[in-house]
Amino acid sequence: MSGLAMPAVFAQGSTGNGVQKQNRQSKYSSAMMKEKILYDTDIGSDIDDSLCLAYLLNQKQCDLLGITTVTGEPVVRAMLASALLKAAGRDDIPIYPGVEKPLLTPQKQPEAHQSKYLPKYPHEEKFPEGEAIEFLRRTIRAHPNEITLLATGPFTNIALLFAVDPEIPSLLKKLVVMGGAFTYRYKGEPCLSEWNARCDPYATAMMYRAPVKEIVSVGLDVTSKVVLEKDEIIERFNAGILKTALDFSGILDNTRQEIVFHDPLAATVIFKKEICDFKRGNVEIEIGSSRLEGLTYWEADEKGKNEVAFNVNKDMFFDHFFSTIAGK
Amino acid sequence: MSGLAMPAVFAQGSTGNGVQKQNRQSKYSSAMMKEKILYDTDIGSDIDDSLCLAYLLNQKQCDLLGITTVTGEPVVRAMLASALLKAAGRDDIPIYPGVEKPLLTPQKQPEAHQSKYLPKYPHEEKFPEGEAIEFLRRTIRAHPNEITLLATGPFTNIALLFAVDPEIPSLLKKLVVMGGAFTYRYKGEPCLSEWNARCDPYATAMMYRAPVKEIVSVGLDVTSKVVLEKDEIIERFNAGILKTALDFSGILDNTRQEIVFHDPLAATVIFKKEICDFKRGNVEIEIGSSRLEGLTYWEADEKGKNEVAFNVNKDMFFDHFFSTIAGK
Amino acid sequence: MSGLAMPAVFAQGSTGNGVQKQNRQSKYSSAMMKEKILYDTDIGSDIDDSLCLAYLLNQKQCDLLGITTVTGEPVVRAMLASALLKAAGRDDIPIYPGVEKPLLTPQKQPEAHQSKYLPKYPHEEKFPEGEAIEFLRRTIRAHPNEITLLATGPFTNIALLFAVDPEIPSLLKKLVVMGGAFTYRYKGEPCLSEWNARCDPYATAMMYRAPVKEIVSVGLDVTSKVVLEKDEIIERFNAGILKTALDFSGILDNTRQEIVFHDPLAATVIFKKEICDFKRGNVEIEIGSSRLEGLTYWEADEKGKNEVAFNVNKDMFFDHFFSTIAGK
Amino acid sequence: MSGLAMPAVFAQGSTGNGVQKQNRQSKYSSAMMKEKILYDTDIGSDIDDSLCLAYLLNQKQCDLLGITTVTGEPVVRAMLASALLKAAGRDDIPIYPGVEKPLLTPQKQPEAHQSKYLPKYPHEEKFPEGEAIEFLRRTIRAHPNEITLLATGPFTNIALLFAVDPEIPSLLKKLVVMGGAFTYRYKGEPCLSEWNARCDPYATAMMYRAPVKEIVSVGLDVTSKVVLEKDEIIERFNAGILKTALDFSGILDNTRQEIVFHDPLAATVIFKKEICDFKRGNVEIEIGSSRLEGLTYWEADEKGKNEVAFNVNKDMFFDHFFSTIAGK
Repeated sequence: MSGLAMPAVFAQGSTGNGVQKQNRQSKYSSAMMKEKILYDTDIGSDIDDSLCLAYLLNQKQCDLLGITTVTGEPVVRAMLASALLKAAGRDDIPIYPGVEKPLLTPQKQPEAHQSKYLPKYPHEEKFPEGEAIEFLRRTIRAHPNEITLLATGPFTNIALLFAVDPEIPSLLKKLVVMGGAFTYRYKGEPCLSEWNARCDPYATAMMYRAPVKEIVSVGLDVTSKVVLEKDEIIERFNAGILKTALDFSGILDNTRQEIVFHDPLAATVIFKKEICDFKRGNVEIEIGSSRLEGLTYWEADEKGKNEVAFNVNKDMFFDHFFSTIAGK
Repeated sequence: MSGLAMPAVFAQGSTGNGVQKQNRQSKYSSAMMKEKILYDTDIGSDIDDSLCLAYLLNQKQCDLLGITTVTGEPVVRAMLASALLKAAGRDDIPIYPGVEKPLLTPQKQPEAHQSKYLPKYPHEEKFPEGEAIEFLRRTIRAHPNEITLLATGPFTNIALLFAVDPEIPSLLKKLVVMGGAFTYRYKGEPCLSEWNARCDPYATAMMYRAPVKEIVSVGLDVTSKVVLEKDEIIERFNAGILKTALDFSGILDNTRQEIVFHDPLAATVIFKKEICDFKRGNVEIEIGSSRLEGLTYWEADEKGKNEVAFNVNKDMFFDHFFSTIAGK
Repeated sequence: MSGLAMPAVFAQGSTGNGVQKQNRQSKYSSAMMKEKILYDTDIGSDIDDSLCLAYLLNQKQCDLLGITTVTGEPVVRAMLASALLKAAGRDDIPIYPGVEKPLLTPQKQPEAHQSKYLPKYPHEEKFPEGEAIEFLRRTIRAHPNEITLLATGPFTNIALLFAVDPEIPSLLKKLVVMGGAFTYRYKGEPCLSEWNARCDPYATAMMYRAPVKEIVSVGLDVTSKVVLEKDEIIERFNAGILKTALDFSGILDNTRQEIVFHDPLAATVIFKKEICDFKRGNVEIEIGSSRLEGLTYWEADEKGKNEVAFNVNKDMFFDHFFSTIAGK
Repeated sequence: MSGLAMPAVFAQGSTGNGVQKQNRQSKYSSAMMKEKILYDTDIGSDIDDSLCLAYLLNQKQCDLLGITTVTGEPVVRAMLASALLKAAGRDDIPIYPGVEKPLLTPQKQPEAHQSKYLPKYPHEEKFPEGEAIEFLRRTIRAHPNEITLLATGPFTNIALLFAVDPEIPSLLKKLVVMGGAFTYRYKGEPCLSEWNARCDPYATAMMYRAPVKEIVSVGLDVTSKVVLEKDEIIERFNAGILKTALDFSGILDNTRQEIVFHDPLAATVIFKKEICDFKRGNVEIEIGSSRLEGLTYWEADEKGKNEVAFNVNKDMFFDHFFSTIAGK
């Protein structure tokens, strides 16, 4: 870990929890040192959202203030998040189903396919209706400049949050997103636009234009480098919440042969930024071309508000991810 | 209605009306017969919003549940609404400043010019921040299928309201808007798009696509037919709230020579629909062309959810407007 | 006829042909006084192109240098033109089939429906292939600043002519087109774009941007005012070339009940401009909106190169048209 | 070949080649075996067009029927081509200045910078005006299915040629273009669109949509791999036409340090296709977005009419290029 690159609050590493055990007062001060996180997710489509949530729940530096879901069947997605929270013994964390449809374009992600696994796992069935944006808004206003908003699904909720109360962007500590394809590559092949951005291009444009102090983007070109094959997944997903995630993943019933850790990678850089190499600059979003809406334009600019990942230390990522999950 | 979830001001209902003071029973029954209205306005640019508010305050069938403002300087616009409410002795009605900027296009209406008249009139200075959409949302959820939402400014607040909580459109009784130019005419001249629609074309598109049971549109081609010249205005705006409106209007200092009753016309058809002739059909909004954005496409369709005004009985409108203001 | 408004060459009226009979020399000088016309037409769809050609053939001030056809089945359209020329004893006039498809948009006018009438009328079957643009180009270069180009179909040929040899626009005397809808009206109803412009919007844009000295546009809003009903048509189309045109028109077999004189109106203003009222200004063409491509933007500008018709003297038009046809 | 229809200069055919001088019979048979080439070029901007022309002049299998120029200052570009032809003793080859401006977008390449070298080299000053497209058209019609059209500048001439006479595409043997960026890379960096395609995106779209039997595209991603540095250029460009090209190149006055052999690569694959690896498929061009216009969409399709280069054998290219220039 590079002390130079990291804010003091992380640089102290894993000593925080030890302190918490001493007494309530110090526990309070240690809680102040945690990262307050709000997590907006399309959990229920690909498995990586579940792995991201598993990571956040096991990351001792993470104070997860709430979860919002987005895209098709947001209530089902909330149930899936609830199942994971219950499995982790953390159902104190509030979950709000968010917005189902993109602002103006056709729905690309209508269903939460992992719903088929729900009957096996206890979960909440009822959630507040239509209150996800207001929940995010109130929570951020209650903790000005302290909250990191992590978004790993299409950006409809985020765009609406920023539009509904235009002071919100500037009240965030930062916004971290899994999204974009800044070098136009996916696994070595040309890829002009990334799924989250393409699912709601107008929302993506609204999000990137908002006056957030810092937007950290981990795009498809980088996330696609952190992949595990089936055999290794079965070997390593052998306990606790990872067993549940493995069950959701489609690996065991052979509907998929590998897992790409898109969303977990975005989450880990909140806590260990050196996992990726970032460049500072500006990001804009294409909305004029119906074929390429959601394409991310990138230009380097030292004064830009965006930090975009251009490379990843794959070993460092997996070491950090699995050791965090293992509670080390 | 959940007392916990609702701000006190609207949990108490509106008590300002003389009839309501008699006793609880008659209050209940008379309130049931009134139209519950939420009014979203860009009051402060043109004078017609003030006249529309004056009308609503004097319309005995109107139960005005709250006011939200929209576009540039929304807090100044809230102050202007407050000044009128205080002048009318109705400052029990809640006012929420809404969203300042359009979703994705440049700001066309940055200032509320009538702010220069504020120093002469008592008004509130502080309003809830960033809560306009949530106020609308909760109020509509508290009165399902009972509320008519009247929107006479750019449709940014309305689009966000409908997007944030997608059940809201279907929980409205109806939506009435001043907007569009369905025959592409303004005072006999070609006019491809109308100001409110053009100021935020993406919001306008989102609004018209939402599953509202009924959208009543009174467009520029029709509203532009209800005009009064300076002399007649001075003669008829001779008492009460109209004197305040006259002061705001720019008529007395010769910055304008006539008033077009755009917004009041939209308000009157809520209570006396026969003032306009309507056709039923479908409305869509152009967003692909930068020159045409906000243009309203219209096609007749008996099963359409839109009622669009194509003509107005000018005398009936003015008779109704002035007799309502006069308390008759 | 207004001597003030008309160049001397027209103002001398119908004396030209009489002079031609005297001797070759004076014939030459009188030919100089005629208007040299190139006519680009989609003859074969609506009947008005045939009436326009009939007018040109009977207009003594017209020196028709050639005909080019445009849109679907251009060779069939050339045959139809040939049939009319032969019927008029004028098959010295060259005919070139032009371009079939629009530059970039789908074909809207694939067939020349009047082909069904061809078997009854003698006509040429073979025409030069792919040479229409080169014919126009060479003819215009051979008569710099003398030729009026009349275009009454989609503007594909014209756009290509102007692009292929960019000096051509400035070598024309003027361009006269039937096209556009400058007040967005057709027979009193809203009409945002006109057929010729919509059939090839990119070509229309290229045409209006070209540095022609003067473009005279007679749009749908005006042409649609010169209409004859079936009975009057049958009565007045009683001799010569009009009988052939009547046969082509669909009137006799009841497939149509009226004729709108779109294209003839554009032709007549070359010779008798006061038939329409014109305003000077600028014209631009929408190409960004897929729904409204081809829409004509108009703004008044004394220095503009466009003259756009905004009204028509209907009686003057029909008197001029029928008296010209009758050889008076 | 129709002597009447063809300008004398190409009715005479090309006689410059040594082999052709032996006798009529062998001339005929050898001419039959040569590739008939028409070359459309923006010579005068970058140096690679000159190298491409030098290659064609020295390629014994090439029967160069004519040259057309395109983009800003087409006459200056024709002079530059003339200077090279004269230097090579080949001024029998006809040169036609083509179209200066893109069809609908702003001019990106207004000047032929190499004009500063013209005073040193003898060249023609006068060329036919506005006849480039017609020259291409007649030449192709005179040799149906025999001509390879090589285009290494923006595609305005080609689009117009195909539009003006829609049979032309199917009368070509093939079309070979330097253009596009099919993997969205230039020297390893992201590159969404390539200069030739972007300079006239509408023309590029028209060209790729035309029914040519085979379009061979050598894009920026591949051409950018064939680069020589300054020292090697000075060493190898040491005789004959390459000395002239070196002078034009800007290498000697240090305005550039390397040459990328974009256009020569496209020319060499006509004669030695194995220099590049090709895939068969479909190409489409973006025109809807102002930022992305000219972007090349590529999809593999065994039945596609496009062959697109995806790799190059750099050594084979340079060996072939320099040995051809050396007359081996």
